[in-house]
Amino acid sequence: MIRVVIIGSGNVAQHLIKAFAKSDNIDVIKAFSRNKENLENIIDSSKISTDLNDLIDADLYIISVSDNAIAEVSHQLNIEKKLVVHTSGSITMTDLNNKNRKGVFYPLQTFSKSKEVNFNEIPICLEAENNEDYKLLETVAKSISEKIFNINSNQRKALHVSAVFVNNFVNHLYKIGNDICNKNNIPFEILQPLIQETANKISLLSPNDAQTGPAKRNDTQTINSHLQFLTNENQKEIYKLLTKSIIDNGKKL
Amino acid sequence: MIRVVIIGSGNVAQHLIKAFAKSDNIDVIKAFSRNKENLENIIDSSKISTDLNDLIDADLYIISVSDNAIAEVSHQLNIEKKLVVHTSGSITMTDLNNKNRKGVFYPLQTFSKSKEVNFNEIPICLEAENNEDYKLLETVAKSISEKIFNINSNQRKALHVSAVFVNNFVNHLYKIGNDICNKNNIPFEILQPLIQETANKISLLSPNDAQTGPAKRNDTQTINSHLQFLTNENQKEIYKLLTKSIIDNGKKL
Repeated sequence: MIRVVIIGSGNVAQHLIKAFAKSDNIDVIKAFSRNKENLENIIDSSKISTDLNDLIDADLYIISVSDNAIAEVSHQLNIEKKLVVHTSGSITMTDLNNKNRKGVFYPLQTFSKSKEVNFNEIPICLEAENNEDYKLLETVAKSISEKIFNINSNQRKALHVSAVFVNNFVNHLYKIGNDICNKNNIPFEILQPLIQETANKISLLSPNDAQTGPAKRNDTQTINSHLQFLTNENQKEIYKLLTKSIIDNGKKL
Repeated sequence: MIRVVIIGSGNVAQHLIKAFAKSDNIDVIKAFSRNKENLENIIDSSKISTDLNDLIDADLYIISVSDNAIAEVSHQLNIEKKLVVHTSGSITMTDLNNKNRKGVFYPLQTFSKSKEVNFNEIPICLEAENNEDYKLLETVAKSISEKIFNINSNQRKALHVSAVFVNNFVNHLYKIGNDICNKNNIPFEILQPLIQETANKISLLSPNDAQTGPAKRNDTQTINSHLQFLTNENQKEIYKLLTKSIIDNGKKL
């Protein structure tokens, strides 16, 4: 059994604890949270601690707190030469305190407390300072997911920026679609099969091949009629910039 | 049996012909294409015609050609007082020629020749000039889909603009994610579970509730580090505008 300590109680920490509970190889021996209640339905309450001084011996310490607290928390740990990793997409491995061995265990997915995820299909991006630590992280990752990737800190940053485009920004475009529907008394559910199929297509076609629509066709008549239809200046700006980007991209090919 | 004539041989026409073929109520008695080969694997070749003068008596004529050809094709039909509809999201019903009864039969989905779709789940947006014609369109639509919506021309325009945001623009954001991955030797497949989950979430949470990320948190440190990371000016512009839009939206709530 690999003994794991989790520090943090946010979305990622909670989903990790649940996923490890289903694995035969991993024993989460302690989980730390500033508020005990955050983890009460997630793990046996005897294993929850609110005091970082309670830290016990383990094979792996996973810091899963907000990005700006990672360095500070890694500094506070009263352990030395242990393997300590964080779960962040945007923080480099070297931000962890030097007194311990460093690594990253970054599950690339959008987590919500209210929605279960199938961890098995979540890519886990790993990084470590040496081969032995990498092997341990790999064993831990493989116990909950089939998709393991060796990703260094610079690549992870690229991945995190990409994720902002394909998740955060995409979701914001859904919101704009929702707003336009609401304004015109159209149920947003009409768009859901289209949203699904747009995402599904990408597993079969490259985004370039999957591109359709007035911008791709350089159909200025439809583009202008859409811009005339939009009254919200912000929506107009976004429409113009993304249309221009699609048209420019077509010219490059 | 409702006798249907299809005019056109593009993606929508082909998918409609295939869907009607599975229905017991609909008989596609003729399909018109400028190139016979376009439809040869889709429908019995005796039913394909390249000459619009071959038009025969039917209950419904579906014009499924490119937007800018719809008015002209509806003018060319040598029939009168028949029910003629188009399948476009962006053309009003009134663009159809006055010599026939008008309607719209708009399946809201992104169609690719190379990818099968389950028509059953595709919303079909209907419009007609009178109740009797609407009922016929409804019967035809129900024979291939479970999701039928009564949508007038103005709503359909709103829907089409929304679809540009949630499909065309979303796909372009996938492309940017793909470009960033390629540039950093990261397999794009790492992002696919995230892309899927982002789309899935929307069936359970509103886009507002599903929003996450640095812009939502107004995390200027991460935003600035991402902007510094991006070297492509176009990607930078899109990052800035969508981030601003998410932040502004948060202020409004």
